[in-house]
Amino acid sequence: MDKLHILKIGGKVLEQPAQGDPILEFFTNITGPKVLVHGGGKRADQLCRQLNIEPQMREGRRITDEATLEIVTMVYAGLLNKQLVAKLQSMGANAIGLSGADGNVIQAHKRPAKPFDWGYAGDVDQVNTEVILALIKDGLVPVFCAITHDQNGQLLNTNADTIAAEVAIALAPHFEVHLHYCFEKGGVLANPDDDEAIIPSLNTSNYRAYVESGVISAGMKPKLDNAFRALEHQVQAVRIGNFETIPYGRGTKLELG
Amino acid sequence: MDKLHILKIGGKVLEQPAQGDPILEFFTNITGPKVLVHGGGKRADQLCRQLNIEPQMREGRRITDEATLEIVTMVYAGLLNKQLVAKLQSMGANAIGLSGADGNVIQAHKRPAKPFDWGYAGDVDQVNTEVILALIKDGLVPVFCAITHDQNGQLLNTNADTIAAEVAIALAPHFEVHLHYCFEKGGVLANPDDDEAIIPSLNTSNYRAYVESGVISAGMKPKLDNAFRALEHQVQAVRIGNFETIPYGRGTKLELG
Repeated sequence: MDKLHILKIGGKVLEQPAQGDPILEFFTNITGPKVLVHGGGKRADQLCRQLNIEPQMREGRRITDEATLEIVTMVYAGLLNKQLVAKLQSMGANAIGLSGADGNVIQAHKRPAKPFDWGYAGDVDQVNTEVILALIKDGLVPVFCAITHDQNGQLLNTNADTIAAEVAIALAPHFEVHLHYCFEKGGVLANPDDDEAIIPSLNTSNYRAYVESGVISAGMKPKLDNAFRALEHQVQAVRIGNFETIPYGRGTKLELG
Repeated sequence: MDKLHILKIGGKVLEQPAQGDPILEFFTNITGPKVLVHGGGKRADQLCRQLNIEPQMREGRRITDEATLEIVTMVYAGLLNKQLVAKLQSMGANAIGLSGADGNVIQAHKRPAKPFDWGYAGDVDQVNTEVILALIKDGLVPVFCAITHDQNGQLLNTNADTIAAEVAIALAPHFEVHLHYCFEKGGVLANPDDDEAIIPSLNTSNYRAYVESGVISAGMKPKLDNAFRALEHQVQAVRIGNFETIPYGRGTKLELG
């Protein structure tokens, strides 16, 4: 099977062009099929506040009312997605930006309002690999933002880490998928105050111990749960790090068992 | 040659869902390949004002400084494009939203700052038919917003009427292209105060007379210039109207000569 790389970028990588460019160059230089997935929560927070809406978060996830859905659609699918696509085009990658509605590539449903009402938050039902494979075959490089739809005309806000994992899992029968979660740290840290204290590898048992001891924070847990889920569903390799670790095969490597 | 329909929607059609839905249903029901192009200036004006930026217009075109470029990218490529794509998906059209940067489909350059500085306004250099034809062959329905790029990483604001004409001209060697400009009026009016006074057909000579006599306003002229340009470049048919005229083959028909 051919290799396919999925790179998820978020956090400061999207805020500071100087931090973002090296990882986009790394991504552009990957040979063979590849997919980019991006977040953009900090920029969305900023626009919320400019529009006098205080961002509402819970367990690191956004509570998405109607006004907030419009804001994240503008920031993720509009501003950041098109800025990334234009930048990748200038670097030589034939990028094409996608929300889950485009080509019906990611079908989701609105999360039930009980026990807690998250508003227009979407949980993924299915990834439409047919269209994604056709785009890749056309020589295009899909760039996913964190917006999905319910096939009834409703856009939904879906966590970008989840989208990266779901796309990776859906493509795993077709490619040897390598999934890289790229953020501002060099990897998962054993000590949040020491950027050098990168945990080189995590497996399900030491992961549980790190979570129980509080070394791995609540904010990091959803990302890692997604990452482990991908590994459990035939994704070949999952790595977490930044532009100084991922291109050199360092950072935190996830392992089963 | 197969027929291909291009529908451009703008104005109140994008503001009032009750006005927009019938034309989207008409569009969805067109058999064979089709392309949607949309504007969104009024929604962009609204967001500008919410962010304390007064929209700057000249000759019906937007002067696009850096902050305004971010706003139009958010509104056109994000909010409106994805809302339209999600709505078309719910109606059964396999829509895929595109800016000119996506798949490098519309290459433009920043308009020179002299004699007048329009800011980040893009004039189209080339439409990449190869990617558009591949998407259509994949069964997808391209939905273009009014954002292009310069291939050096810079997004640009390009008039949606112009994009519709340029895409129509580029596809004319491949299809019998029918271009429909859809807005809130039933067609080009001989009397701006009488919505029934639709000019049934316009040719280059009566067009000139209407412009000279002031019947056709300065705001309408760029749209008609684009429309005539398309007709002069092998586009089969061009029509201007709304959801009550275009689906029934009425409105204003443009003719050469």
